[in-house]
Amino acid sequence: MGIPVSVFRQLRSISGKAYVTTEKEELLCYSYDATGISHLPDGVVFPGSETEISRILQLASKEKLIVVPRGTGSGMTGGSVPAKGGLVLVTSRMNKILSIDEENFIIRVQPGVIVSDIHKAVEEKGLFYPPDPSSSSVCTIGGNIGECAGGPRAVKYGVTRDYVLGLRAVLPSGQVIQTGVSTAKGVAGYDLTRLIVGSEGTLAVVTEITLKLLPKPLAVKTMAVLFDSMTKAARTVSGIMKNAIIPRCVEYLDEECLCLIRDHLSFDIAENIKALLIIELDGNPDAVEKDAEQIREFCFSSDALEVMTAQTPAEAQTLWEARKALSPVLYKIAAHKINEDIVVPINKIPEMVEVAQRIQRTSGLRVVSFGHAGDGNIHCNIMYDQSDADACERAKRAVEELFSETLRLGGTITGEHGVGMTKRKFLPDEVGETQINLMRGIKRVFDPLNILNPGKIFE
Amino acid sequence: MGIPVSVFRQLRSISGKAYVTTEKEELLCYSYDATGISHLPDGVVFPGSETEISRILQLASKEKLIVVPRGTGSGMTGGSVPAKGGLVLVTSRMNKILSIDEENFIIRVQPGVIVSDIHKAVEEKGLFYPPDPSSSSVCTIGGNIGECAGGPRAVKYGVTRDYVLGLRAVLPSGQVIQTGVSTAKGVAGYDLTRLIVGSEGTLAVVTEITLKLLPKPLAVKTMAVLFDSMTKAARTVSGIMKNAIIPRCVEYLDEECLCLIRDHLSFDIAENIKALLIIELDGNPDAVEKDAEQIREFCFSSDALEVMTAQTPAEAQTLWEARKALSPVLYKIAAHKINEDIVVPINKIPEMVEVAQRIQRTSGLRVVSFGHAGDGNIHCNIMYDQSDADACERAKRAVEELFSETLRLGGTITGEHGVGMTKRKFLPDEVGETQINLMRGIKRVFDPLNILNPGKIFE
Repeated sequence: MGIPVSVFRQLRSISGKAYVTTEKEELLCYSYDATGISHLPDGVVFPGSETEISRILQLASKEKLIVVPRGTGSGMTGGSVPAKGGLVLVTSRMNKILSIDEENFIIRVQPGVIVSDIHKAVEEKGLFYPPDPSSSSVCTIGGNIGECAGGPRAVKYGVTRDYVLGLRAVLPSGQVIQTGVSTAKGVAGYDLTRLIVGSEGTLAVVTEITLKLLPKPLAVKTMAVLFDSMTKAARTVSGIMKNAIIPRCVEYLDEECLCLIRDHLSFDIAENIKALLIIELDGNPDAVEKDAEQIREFCFSSDALEVMTAQTPAEAQTLWEARKALSPVLYKIAAHKINEDIVVPINKIPEMVEVAQRIQRTSGLRVVSFGHAGDGNIHCNIMYDQSDADACERAKRAVEELFSETLRLGGTITGEHGVGMTKRKFLPDEVGETQINLMRGIKRVFDPLNILNPGKIFE
Repeated sequence: MGIPVSVFRQLRSISGKAYVTTEKEELLCYSYDATGISHLPDGVVFPGSETEISRILQLASKEKLIVVPRGTGSGMTGGSVPAKGGLVLVTSRMNKILSIDEENFIIRVQPGVIVSDIHKAVEEKGLFYPPDPSSSSVCTIGGNIGECAGGPRAVKYGVTRDYVLGLRAVLPSGQVIQTGVSTAKGVAGYDLTRLIVGSEGTLAVVTEITLKLLPKPLAVKTMAVLFDSMTKAARTVSGIMKNAIIPRCVEYLDEECLCLIRDHLSFDIAENIKALLIIELDGNPDAVEKDAEQIREFCFSSDALEVMTAQTPAEAQTLWEARKALSPVLYKIAAHKINEDIVVPINKIPEMVEVAQRIQRTSGLRVVSFGHAGDGNIHCNIMYDQSDADACERAKRAVEELFSETLRLGGTITGEHGVGMTKRKFLPDEVGETQINLMRGIKRVFDPLNILNPGKIFE
């Protein structure tokens, strides 16, 4: 078993000795993602260029060697875990912003660039790249492409796929393709660009990404709205969207979340507060001012107890930092969590909130909900202790119930985390065997030897 | 040759006698699209339901019968022309708006619904479906899905693919799939929804479409801006986009176009006017007012001779009707046109305008340009007489030069019309053989017998 020594010799001659490793300690570092699922690879390679990746995949094809592309491993469904061993291909050295074209509103980047570095680079030039997953300060754009990352601003601006104009990618055979366009429109044949987006590194290794940019909004306004009931907050969300105003973010946090981030907030949370909405608007300064006033009135008419507006960018940032801190601080409740990013139609959010509360009661596990309520995308976190076999069993059943209720309400089991390993067995319930067979067929077209990230999405 | 009588008997038992025809006069009606390319089918069927379509395709698979799905035939690249005969499947009876969900901002429609009927139905409810191809009063949403239609509002709002959340479709085998979601986000496996969008009816027959809607903008402002040089107008376009204002439309018309639609306009065009920009803004009324003022100033600083603002919706409509009349009135110049919807990066528009002028000189044919300048999408119309063999040859060479210059400038040969038959031979120049082989492979996964609209996009 394992990879023959001669293959590692060839890998070292491709990428250089310093960039190929089989050391146990290092293999461990590239064995897991944010799910905590871990599987040791046989080796790790850090290629420095598209040419190297092409040569690595040629070699892999020849040797029937599994290759698993990986950014920083912040994924939530095991997408980058080397489930069947093989070689992990880390994009960390391919971390250059290749060009920012201010006249045509596009940026070209390598896959290993950290998403917040893209934000900073374009905002300095008065431009804007909207997708902003909570992990943006650590995750790579390549990983965002792989899973079609979303984040809070999707309400107004859409998700990663809406900004990917074109890709360069290496096929498992080592052949290089350049998909899509560098322009706003383009329909030259089947849409291979958006087929690769969200394919979790199972079809090709992306080596260069052309993203669409927007002008940076001139004003941003961030509001915190407090409610004494989760259901009232959820009802407010579906109401807000009907006012011909589309906020760029509508996030919600339940009572459990508020307890956890109390120390991170710049304001006090009274005893009777059960839910918080974070609403953010952007655009022309006057319009933002006016829209904020309208939303404020609407929130009060929907029984909000308090509507606070951030007076400075720093205040807004504190609020967002509290929100982004949620995912890690959840571990205060229990050693392990299952974070399921279900989506339901906006008007079904109140019902979904009740489902989550019911699951908490029946499972006896803490179920903490927060998320991107503006697009119906709720992160339900089921907290448990993996060393407790009974809790594991209850967590498993809780997930099953959560997914079946999500589908019953017309939703999807994955809004932005992908399928990876953890949702694989549930995918047929959502899309059916006929579609999975089509996906398997497409996989075979791109990867006839099944060497690229096998064991993900479907078997 | 042709389809056996027994097959027609079965087709009649599926869809009813009235909805299957082999009459020559009727075959003729379904033999061509807006390119003027014509090829007689062997029969035409007008199914009334998804079940009928599934049975028709089961029969077609059994009999290896070609099936070509078709809306109203307004396509610009021969996508719905039955290039190899067979059965044309017309969606005109499947023309129902199934539901408009005001709370979740979605509409479900059948493929035969006329696009402007969708506009009307949702706008009555304060909602908005942005894509608005020039043919919207005659084209079907099914055809828009097939070609990934665009139109002038793509500058701000994107194209058809950005609004398709999910599809129901029948595979060539007769199996029915339901792709995508009814929610704003979703990444459950490979993106089959956007693979089918733009696939020109070669992968599946779409039977139901779930579209995302937006709140209807509260205010719209339409401006006509006049220039004494096409190059100045083109430069203004790339300048406008840099002002943190994204108009919903930035259309341009060259001198030739202005002559043609002079009678349709509510204002006079002086001798020295060589180009017109139509700029349309939408949003919150105050913001629109302010943005319009800023754009007005910018246009004057870019040497505009006149900036006129429509004072009433009727005035704006007159301007749009003049713009939309362009495509048909072009036939005043010559009996035939080749309308190529190339796209170049916005800052390359001035150069592309010069290329078009040069091609006009070298070919000796009139080349009329207008289009969606805000996203770099230019409709170059090469006008000629098909009965003149020499003109045909020059038109052919003009297209070749236009495409090669487009690719040299980093553009695409098709922004929103698709590849169909007319651009098939040019596709390899843009995407390369490796990608075409992937597309062929995907085609085989969906349609192993090659019965669904064969001879399109690639061979």
